Amino acid sequence: LDYQHVQVPFEITLWIMLASLAKIGFHLYNKLPSVVPESCLLIFVGLIMGGIIYGLNDRSPPVMDSDIFFLYLLPPIVLDAGYFMPSRPFFENIGTILLYAVVGTIWNVFGIGFSLYGICQVKSFRLQDVSLLHNLLFGSLIAAVDPVAVLAVFEEIHVNEKLHILVFGESLLNDAVTVVLYKLFRSFCEMPTIKSVDVFAGVGKFFVVGLGGVLVGLSFGFTAAFTTRFTKDIRVIEPLFVFLYSYLSYLTAEMFHLSGIVAIISCAMGMKRYVEANISLKSHTTVKYFMKMWSSVSDTLIFIFLGVSTIGDNHEWNWPYICFTVIFCLIWRALGVLVLTFFVNRFHVNTITSKDQFIIAYGGLRGAICFSLVFLLPDFHRKKLFIAATTVVILFTVFVQGMTIRPLVDLLAVKRKRESAPTVGEQIHIRFLDHLLAGIEDISGHWGQYYWKDKLEYFNSKYLQKILLREYDQPKSSIVLLYEKLERKHAIELAQAGQLGHGPAHPSFLSSSDRTVITDQKLEDTPNPDVLDNMQEILARNLYRIRRTGPAYNRHTLPGDSEPTERAKEILILRHKSL
Amino acid sequence: LDYQHVQVPFEITLWIMLASLAKIGFHLYNKLPSVVPESCLLIFVGLIMGGIIYGLNDRSPPVMDSDIFFLYLLPPIVLDAGYFMPSRPFFENIGTILLYAVVGTIWNVFGIGFSLYGICQVKSFRLQDVSLLHNLLFGSLIAAVDPVAVLAVFEEIHVNEKLHILVFGESLLNDAVTVVLYKLFRSFCEMPTIKSVDVFAGVGKFFVVGLGGVLVGLSFGFTAAFTTRFTKDIRVIEPLFVFLYSYLSYLTAEMFHLSGIVAIISCAMGMKRYVEANISLKSHTTVKYFMKMWSSVSDTLIFIFLGVSTIGDNHEWNWPYICFTVIFCLIWRALGVLVLTFFVNRFHVNTITSKDQFIIAYGGLRGAICFSLVFLLPDFHRKKLFIAATTVVILFTVFVQGMTIRPLVDLLAVKRKRESAPTVGEQIHIRFLDHLLAGIEDISGHWGQYYWKDKLEYFNSKYLQKILLREYDQPKSSIVLLYEKLERKHAIELAQAGQLGHGPAHPSFLSSSDRTVITDQKLEDTPNPDVLDNMQEILARNLYRIRRTGPAYNRHTLPGDSEPTERAKEILILRHKSL
Repeated sequence: LDYQHVQVPFEITLWIMLASLAKIGFHLYNKLPSVVPESCLLIFVGLIMGGIIYGLNDRSPPVMDSDIFFLYLLPPIVLDAGYFMPSRPFFENIGTILLYAVVGTIWNVFGIGFSLYGICQVKSFRLQDVSLLHNLLFGSLIAAVDPVAVLAVFEEIHVNEKLHILVFGESLLNDAVTVVLYKLFRSFCEMPTIKSVDVFAGVGKFFVVGLGGVLVGLSFGFTAAFTTRFTKDIRVIEPLFVFLYSYLSYLTAEMFHLSGIVAIISCAMGMKRYVEANISLKSHTTVKYFMKMWSSVSDTLIFIFLGVSTIGDNHEWNWPYICFTVIFCLIWRALGVLVLTFFVNRFHVNTITSKDQFIIAYGGLRGAICFSLVFLLPDFHRKKLFIAATTVVILFTVFVQGMTIRPLVDLLAVKRKRESAPTVGEQIHIRFLDHLLAGIEDISGHWGQYYWKDKLEYFNSKYLQKILLREYDQPKSSIVLLYEKLERKHAIELAQAGQLGHGPAHPSFLSSSDRTVITDQKLEDTPNPDVLDNMQEILARNLYRIRRTGPAYNRHTLPGDSEPTERAKEILILRHKSL
Repeated sequence: LDYQHVQVPFEITLWIMLASLAKIGFHLYNKLPSVVPESCLLIFVGLIMGGIIYGLNDRSPPVMDSDIFFLYLLPPIVLDAGYFMPSRPFFENIGTILLYAVVGTIWNVFGIGFSLYGICQVKSFRLQDVSLLHNLLFGSLIAAVDPVAVLAVFEEIHVNEKLHILVFGESLLNDAVTVVLYKLFRSFCEMPTIKSVDVFAGVGKFFVVGLGGVLVGLSFGFTAAFTTRFTKDIRVIEPLFVFLYSYLSYLTAEMFHLSGIVAIISCAMGMKRYVEANISLKSHTTVKYFMKMWSSVSDTLIFIFLGVSTIGDNHEWNWPYICFTVIFCLIWRALGVLVLTFFVNRFHVNTITSKDQFIIAYGGLRGAICFSLVFLLPDFHRKKLFIAATTVVILFTVFVQGMTIRPLVDLLAVKRKRESAPTVGEQIHIRFLDHLLAGIEDISGHWGQYYWKDKLEYFNSKYLQKILLREYDQPKSSIVLLYEKLERKHAIELAQAGQLGHGPAHPSFLSSSDRTVITDQKLEDTPNPDVLDNMQEILARNLYRIRRTGPAYNRHTLPGDSEPTERAKEILILRHKSL
């Protein structure tokens, strides 16, 4: 037996296996995941595992290594989040998200830090040796909402899209602030005196860390898109580039002390549309599927490790400090959300309701990022107290808040996510309004979001697409793409039902009663089959016209751009067929 | 800048990136890969990289670590090989493959070892200090044909299926022999005296290592299949289990000093049919795609590292020893193939032609396994000579043999692989003959391959499928599956051509001229569209009957097994539709 030789990969594989089997186990008994969020169950499994290890070895089980967390477990989750980020609501609410992420987080850090310092002044609590700087350092790591925890809980409760993107976007973008503040206070702790110039340097760093992350991410994203231009002959390694370049963007950002999370998100969002157009359909399925799989495994491992790491004797228990930490975390977040939303609502027509505000405040879950940061603290005599407080805050938010948020959402009747995808009609309508608003903004000289979106689209179609896409063509209208997708799905289901027309062999296929059955099968996940069916028929008859008029939506191309001869030919073919 | 922190993942990602970009680069200029095999190009890139590193650092570049090779790079390739192994030709030729792999490899080891020992006795060569045992040890590592190198070259030259499986199967299964002989001679080298009992123990070990590998692999494979029974609710982690269990089988086998390669191949072959039935179509695409991607990357990395590791000063040059090693490798392999094939041909009707024999002998490429094994040798004063000789043999086989084998195959007009998949008619014919032969063997009391295959199929459908499949159903006949696949493909292409019938909107779709166009598009990769089209029409009309009579091919179930009521209902529905 030669265990030493295979130990590392063997144990990693076993942990992943345990995580996957735990996931299967939860889903075997169907009622459990609908009551308790999976994250809680996983932490619970971790606690049991930790207890077993502690019992067998009689010493603390190994703590989740911060390097492993930041270098290997976090990137897949963030990549998944960035790649599948719904870009429309994200950019529509980018201002609010940034306000919550930057100002809100700073507010929380200083609020929690100063009030905990106040608590430390109470003599009977015996905490007078915890300095203000240490409290602020602790505040900087405990203030940030955790994307992994937020995603795990919010994915299950299906609140409306805007609410979801506000909480989730904040949890992703606050990374830049956390990185800066955490490193700033940590270096202040080690410095003998703090000059005012250091504070200003800290403020400047915000922009460097955040914008630097965006820059690194975008450059890697565009390189990835450019690379996939040349993979036509070796389709099999296409998915690799998506993963490699995003991971490199994360590592590069971390290397330069920029925000890795911001970098990988920009990279994923930047490359997505070009990569999707360049790679094959199967490669794309693989990319999507593997990304989901990977992030799901990472997520599972993080929560299990969180549980395992909780067990052990690296905690120092101090009731007042720990209780007040939990209370201040709740209070300052609630206050911050109230104040910031007040300002946001003054400048927006589409306001954030008070119910939504409550869920935003209540959904501020803490998770593995805090946990990893607290272990990265330099050794000092109160580190164990901080570890204990962080653990309690995480467990409190994940268990208490995570488990009660679903009933609360039900109770408050918070607006849910619409179950159905937007219909073709709605999509056309939205697109039309976008162009209309861009025109209005242009005429009125107001440089708003529609104006910039239009400019970006122009830049994209004029330069970026020519460089980054293999087959640079008139971009297909998204409606045509949707139609193609529906057609493909329809076709597969027809084939599966064995009802694909083989010429005259199946004349019955065309009877209308038969067709309704098929349509029902096909559209099992869309709510309004009749409407969509009509749409589809209209599109089927007029596909030619739509494809041609698609580009006419764009203000920068003239409707008559396509060659008339080609057009005439196509019309001829279409006519010929329909006769 | 904090490079230390991200160094390990950053450098790994960069190496993979370099490998992938090199692959893209070769394919940009289309003529290059058709003349020079990719493996040669990759080694060449590696040599350049090694030269650069050597030039910059002024010391030998790092050598490919044997642990990294055996634990991380080799498993994906072998898994891919096992999962996509064409099982029919493999099991039809299993006797011949085992003969080549076991007897052939032993023949080569002793042949090369003893004749090199003879060379060492020549005084003028100054090699008298190399003992017989060391020569045999060297023989044991240089004798084995390398699956990675064989796959890289044979995938490009498309020889006939039997020839391919003979060379490739041998290269995979000789691992058990190599492991045993290498470890045996290495322990003999360290023992003061060798008793005859040790030699017998060595012989016994063959069976333990080989059969133990099969057992470990099959048990993990069946566990994997069993696990995928329960993944219906979390489709997203399904692909994971395929990878995790196969990797665990490899690691477990390595841990117990069994043959990891044999284990992972048995695991992959054992789980394949059950896993495929249990997991979703998208999961399956991901599994297949990712496996191909992963093995392709591993393969690329191995050849690049092979090149990099060649540069440096850990070689001791001795002309006679190195030249004679190359010559003996060629001669003993040629002799071995001739003698073994003579015996094989005496017992088989379907003989191996002399052209095929030549290609088998000539295709005995050496690769990274020898290279890793030679670095794992215990330190002794002639290790550098062995390293040099191994490197030369690998480069000689990969470059000279690898580059000339394609012209030779053309020159000798070796029977090529048929371009097309077997038609439905052929498949029915083959199946029919299988059952006929199984019956003949049963009656005549001859327990041949068809008899055992039939028994295995019986055991499979009676027990294994019930345990391992989620939806245990009458197994679908492979003809029906093929038909379904063709239908699906057809449907997708119809949809892409925009010609899917939407009821009366497209009456022209049914005109026969139109249909021919579609059929041509659909069958662009099958040679005989008319024949297949007819087949398809017959199948479309009679799908019901085929599905029912499928199981009747099996000798162990009676044709009337299906419930008569269900049958009647289905006939009714079918009638109703065709009216």
